[in-house]
Amino acid sequence: MQNTLILPLRGIIPPVVTPLLNNNTLDVEGLERLLEHIISGGVHGVFILGTTGELPSLSHKLRYELIERTCLHVNDRVPVLVGISDCVFPESLSLAHKAADCGADAVVLAPPYYFALSQSEFLGYLERLVPQIPLPIFLYNIPVYTKVKFAPETVKAAAGIPGIIGLKDSSSDLVYLKQVQYALKDRPDFTFMVGQEELLAEFVLTGGHGGVNGGANMFPKLYVNLYNASVARDLDQVLKLLKTVMQVSSSVYLAGNSPSSYLKGLKCALSLMGICSGFMAEPYSEFGIEERCSIEKSLEELDYKSLF
Amino acid sequence: MQNTLILPLRGIIPPVVTPLLNNNTLDVEGLERLLEHIISGGVHGVFILGTTGELPSLSHKLRYELIERTCLHVNDRVPVLVGISDCVFPESLSLAHKAADCGADAVVLAPPYYFALSQSEFLGYLERLVPQIPLPIFLYNIPVYTKVKFAPETVKAAAGIPGIIGLKDSSSDLVYLKQVQYALKDRPDFTFMVGQEELLAEFVLTGGHGGVNGGANMFPKLYVNLYNASVARDLDQVLKLLKTVMQVSSSVYLAGNSPSSYLKGLKCALSLMGICSGFMAEPYSEFGIEERCSIEKSLEELDYKSLF
Amino acid sequence: MQNTLILPLRGIIPPVVTPLLNNNTLDVEGLERLLEHIISGGVHGVFILGTTGELPSLSHKLRYELIERTCLHVNDRVPVLVGISDCVFPESLSLAHKAADCGADAVVLAPPYYFALSQSEFLGYLERLVPQIPLPIFLYNIPVYTKVKFAPETVKAAAGIPGIIGLKDSSSDLVYLKQVQYALKDRPDFTFMVGQEELLAEFVLTGGHGGVNGGANMFPKLYVNLYNASVARDLDQVLKLLKTVMQVSSSVYLAGNSPSSYLKGLKCALSLMGICSGFMAEPYSEFGIEERCSIEKSLEELDYKSLF
Amino acid sequence: MQNTLILPLRGIIPPVVTPLLNNNTLDVEGLERLLEHIISGGVHGVFILGTTGELPSLSHKLRYELIERTCLHVNDRVPVLVGISDCVFPESLSLAHKAADCGADAVVLAPPYYFALSQSEFLGYLERLVPQIPLPIFLYNIPVYTKVKFAPETVKAAAGIPGIIGLKDSSSDLVYLKQVQYALKDRPDFTFMVGQEELLAEFVLTGGHGGVNGGANMFPKLYVNLYNASVARDLDQVLKLLKTVMQVSSSVYLAGNSPSSYLKGLKCALSLMGICSGFMAEPYSEFGIEERCSIEKSLEELDYKSLF
Repeated sequence: MQNTLILPLRGIIPPVVTPLLNNNTLDVEGLERLLEHIISGGVHGVFILGTTGELPSLSHKLRYELIERTCLHVNDRVPVLVGISDCVFPESLSLAHKAADCGADAVVLAPPYYFALSQSEFLGYLERLVPQIPLPIFLYNIPVYTKVKFAPETVKAAAGIPGIIGLKDSSSDLVYLKQVQYALKDRPDFTFMVGQEELLAEFVLTGGHGGVNGGANMFPKLYVNLYNASVARDLDQVLKLLKTVMQVSSSVYLAGNSPSSYLKGLKCALSLMGICSGFMAEPYSEFGIEERCSIEKSLEELDYKSLF
Repeated sequence: MQNTLILPLRGIIPPVVTPLLNNNTLDVEGLERLLEHIISGGVHGVFILGTTGELPSLSHKLRYELIERTCLHVNDRVPVLVGISDCVFPESLSLAHKAADCGADAVVLAPPYYFALSQSEFLGYLERLVPQIPLPIFLYNIPVYTKVKFAPETVKAAAGIPGIIGLKDSSSDLVYLKQVQYALKDRPDFTFMVGQEELLAEFVLTGGHGGVNGGANMFPKLYVNLYNASVARDLDQVLKLLKTVMQVSSSVYLAGNSPSSYLKGLKCALSLMGICSGFMAEPYSEFGIEERCSIEKSLEELDYKSLF
Repeated sequence: MQNTLILPLRGIIPPVVTPLLNNNTLDVEGLERLLEHIISGGVHGVFILGTTGELPSLSHKLRYELIERTCLHVNDRVPVLVGISDCVFPESLSLAHKAADCGADAVVLAPPYYFALSQSEFLGYLERLVPQIPLPIFLYNIPVYTKVKFAPETVKAAAGIPGIIGLKDSSSDLVYLKQVQYALKDRPDFTFMVGQEELLAEFVLTGGHGGVNGGANMFPKLYVNLYNASVARDLDQVLKLLKTVMQVSSSVYLAGNSPSSYLKGLKCALSLMGICSGFMAEPYSEFGIEERCSIEKSLEELDYKSLF
Repeated sequence: MQNTLILPLRGIIPPVVTPLLNNNTLDVEGLERLLEHIISGGVHGVFILGTTGELPSLSHKLRYELIERTCLHVNDRVPVLVGISDCVFPESLSLAHKAADCGADAVVLAPPYYFALSQSEFLGYLERLVPQIPLPIFLYNIPVYTKVKFAPETVKAAAGIPGIIGLKDSSSDLVYLKQVQYALKDRPDFTFMVGQEELLAEFVLTGGHGGVNGGANMFPKLYVNLYNASVARDLDQVLKLLKTVMQVSSSVYLAGNSPSSYLKGLKCALSLMGICSGFMAEPYSEFGIEERCSIEKSLEELDYKSLF
C-alpha cells in the first residue's frame, strides 16, 4: 500500500538508471545495489522509468518487471514515482495501473513524443487520460524529446485537472520555469521539481521544491546535501557543493561530446563504480574504451568515494 | 508466401490509414473497404504502419492484427510493406517477424524517435538490427518526427548493409533527396521513394522511382495517373493532374491549420467519403464540426467522385 | 534608363558574387570579367547584392559602388536586379534609390534579419516600405537567414501591394513553394524564381519561371541550357544537364563540410578559374589550401572549360 | 577620458532603450530623462546600442549621435558600454573608435548575425577584429538572434585574446552559463553578466557578477536592490523583490504575446511613464491601443511609482 504523499513533494528524487544485462534482461542485483546506494544517500523518493531510466527503449516486459522489483525492494522506505510516458495510450494506462498495484505513490507523464502536440491537443489528451489514472500525476516537461513545451497557461489549466499535482521541468530554461511558477503562485500545493542538477541550488533557494537529478544515481549525498544547504540558506556550503556538481557536469557528462553523453556517461560511471551494469538499451550502445578511460579519470579527479 | 520484389520498386505505394473504431479496436470492414478502394485504383503496393497509419500510437495488439488482416486481404495482389519503427528494439524485431510470417514483402524502418541519434549512432543501430530482420528493408527518413536526417553518406553506408534496399524520404527537402540519389548514383537497384505527393511528378520526371503518398488513400487513381504520366513524360497531363494534387494539398490538408491537419484531414475525408471510420488514435482526436464542414466543402469542390 | 520588365520575368538571373580585393575595396576588373562571363553565357538578367553577393557583410560605400559599376558595365544588355535587404530601414530605401538612379530594373527585398518578424509584422513593414521604393520589387524568402518563412497567405497579401511583382524562394522547400504558387494561381503575372539550382529543372518543368542560381557565376551556360531544356520539355537533355548540376552541388559546394561551404566554395572556384578574386568579406575568410585543392580537383573532374 | 574599469565589472548595467521621435531622429530630451532616471536609480553602468537599444535597426547617423550624447550626458558618472555588433566589419570598427573618442569605457560585441558562424569561424573573426578595437571588449552571446551559441571552450579560447574581458549571456540557459563559468574558473578577472532579469538573483547568489537587465530602464532601483540583496545574501529580501521582477516579466513583457512583446512592451511602458517616446524603429511599430491599455493596467497593478 502506498504512502500518502505530503504536498508539495520536496527534496531529491533521482531518476533511477535502469540496470540491464542485455536488451531483454534486467540486471536485478545491480538494480538492488543501485536502489540501496541511492536510498542510503538520504534521497526523498525515487523515480523510475524516466528519460534517465531509458523508458522509451525498454520492452514492456522489462518495464513491468522493473516496477515490481523496485516497489518490492524500496518497500515504502521512500515514495516511488513511476514514469508512464508512451506514444500508446493504453500502454500509459497499463503502466499506471501496474504502478498502483505494486504500491507506487505517483506517476510521471510526458506527452507522447512522436507526433508534436499543440498546447490544446496536449490538454485534450490530458483530459481524456488523467481520469483513468489511479495515482497522483506529475507532468514532465522535456521539450527536446517531446517536441512540445508546456506554455505557462497550459500548466495552469492542467493543474486544475484533479489528479495532477506537480511539474517536473527538464527544459533547462529557468526563466521559463519561473514564469510557470509565477503563473501558479496561488497554488502552494503544486510541486515544482527541476531536472537539471546544475540548477538545483538556485531553484531551491528561490522557492523551488527540489530536484529530479540524474547525478544522484552516483552521488546521492552530494545532491541531498546541496538540497539541504539550499533549504537552510547556507550559501557557503551551497557554493562549495555546487562546485562539485559543476565538476560532475563538466566531466562525466561530456565524454564523447554528443547529445547522448549524459546518459552514456552516467551509466558508464555507475559501472566503473561497481554499482551496476553499464549496458545501454538500444538504440544506444555503451561507450568504448576511450570514453570509458576519460570517465574513469573524471571519477578519480572527483575523488568520488569521498562523495559517498 | 511473399512475392519476389523487382528492384528498384516503382510506382505508388500508399501509406495506408489505420481505420479504428476506438483506441483498441480495428475498423475491420473499413480496412477492407479501404484496401479494395486503394488496390482497385491501380497502386503498385501498400505500406501499412507508417506515420499516416499512426503506427506510434497503436497498441501492439492492433499492430499485429493489422498486419495479419492486411496480408490476408491483399492476398499477394500487390506487395505489402510493413512499418517496424519503434523505440523498443525487440518490438521492431517482433513486427518484422510477424510481417514475414504473414507473407509481407518488405519492412520500412525509421530511427527510434525519442532519443535523437547521431549519424554514427544510427548506423550502429542499423548494423545491430538489420541482420536480424527476415525481410528486405526500406529506410524511412522523416526528420521532423525522428530528429535525425540521414546524411547522404549515411545512406550510402547503410545501402552497403545487406538487406537494405531503398529509401523513403519524407523530409520535404528535394535538394537533399537529390543529393542522396547522386551519392548513390552507382546503385541503380536502390529504390528511392518520395513521401510528399506534391513532389511526386517532379521526382519521377527526373529519375525517382515513385511515391508513398497519403492522398492515394482517398484518390489512388489520381496519384497512379500522375505517376504514369510522369513516367511517360506527358507534361500536359502531369500539369493537369498536379493541379488537382495541389488542390487536395491546399484544402483537405489545411483544415485546422496545425501540424496535425494532414493526418486529421485525411482521416476525416475518408470518413466523409464513406470508406472507413474517422476515429483518430490518441493522442489525437477527430476534427470537430467546423473542420469537418470545411473538408466536406473541399471534397465537393474537388468533385471527388470524378477522381475515383 | 531602365528597361521595361516583361512580367512574369523568366530565365536564369544569377545572384552575382561580389569580387573583393579586401574588406573595403572592390575587385573592379574581376567584377567586369565576371559580368562578361555571365552575360556571354546567355543569362536573362543579373542580381547583385544578394546572399551570394555577401550584401550583409559589405560596407555601404562598397554597395553603392557596386550598383554603379554593375549598371554601367551591364549597360542595359540584361535587366539588373539589386538587393536592398538591410536591418536599417533608411538604408534599404537608400539602396533602392541608388538602384533607380543608376538605371537598375528592379529590387529584391528580404526581411530585416536580426529581429524575427511575425507574418503580420512583416506585412506591416512591407506596407510602410514599399510605397517609398521607386522600382518594382521581388520578395526574397530565405528563412534560414531571416528567421521568417512567408506563409502562402502572406505572399498572397503582399502580392496585392502595388510594386511587388514576384518571389524569389530560397527556402529549399519545393512543397512550400508549390503551395505558394497554388495560392497565387490567379496571378499569372506574378514571377516565381527558385534559388536552389538543384531544383531549377523540376521547378520550370512544372510551371516555375526560372532560377536565381549561384552556380551560374561559374557556368552560366549550364544553367541557361538547363532552363531552356526544361522550357522545351526536352527531358533527355534535362537529365543529362541535371547530372552535371548535381556534380557541382555535390563537390564544389561541399568542401569544408559546413554551412558556409557553398559561398566559400563558389568564390574559391571563381578564383581558381581566373575570373575574379576569391577574397571573402568578413566575417568569413577564404578557404585554406586543403579545401582549395579539393575544389581544384572538383573543377578538373567537371572538365569545367567544357561547360563554358 | 574614460574611467579605468575595475575587473570583474559588477552590478546592474541596463541595456538602454533608444528613445526615438521617428526612424531618423533621436528623442534627445527623452534620452536625457531616461539616463537621469537610470543613473539616479543607482546603476553601476549603462550599455547603449544593444538588442534592447535596437542597434541593428538604427541608421549609422543615429548610432554615432547616440554615443556622443550618452557619453556627454553621463559624463563619467558611471561606465558607459557601447554595442558594436554589426554584419559589416568596418562599421563595428568605426563604432568602437567613436566610442573610444567619446570616452566610453568598453564595447560589447555579438557575432555578425546574417551568416551563421561556426565556432572556429567566430574565433577567427575575433582574432582579426579584436586587435583593432581600442577599448576593452565584452562578448555578447544571444543565439536566438545571432544563430551561434558560443561553446564553453570557445569562450575559454576567446578569453585568451587580449582585450576580451567578459561575457554578457542572453541565452536564457543558466545551465550553459554555469558551464561556461566553470570552464573559466581560473579566470577570476573575467566578468560574467546575465541578460535575463528573471535570473539575476540566482546568478549573483551563486557567483555571477551582475545583470544587463532591460527592466532597469523602467525600475532601476528594483534591479539594483535585487542585486544588492543577492550580494548580501539577504534571501528574504531577494524573494520579495524577485516576486516583483516576475510580475514585470509576466505582465509588461507579455502584451501581444509574440517574440517582440518584450521590446515593444518595455518601450510602451517607458512612454506611459512619461520618460521617453515609445516610437519603435522599423521593422517594428508601436503597440496599438489594446496592448497599450494592457500595459497601463500592468503598471497600475505594479504600483510602479513605488518602485522609483
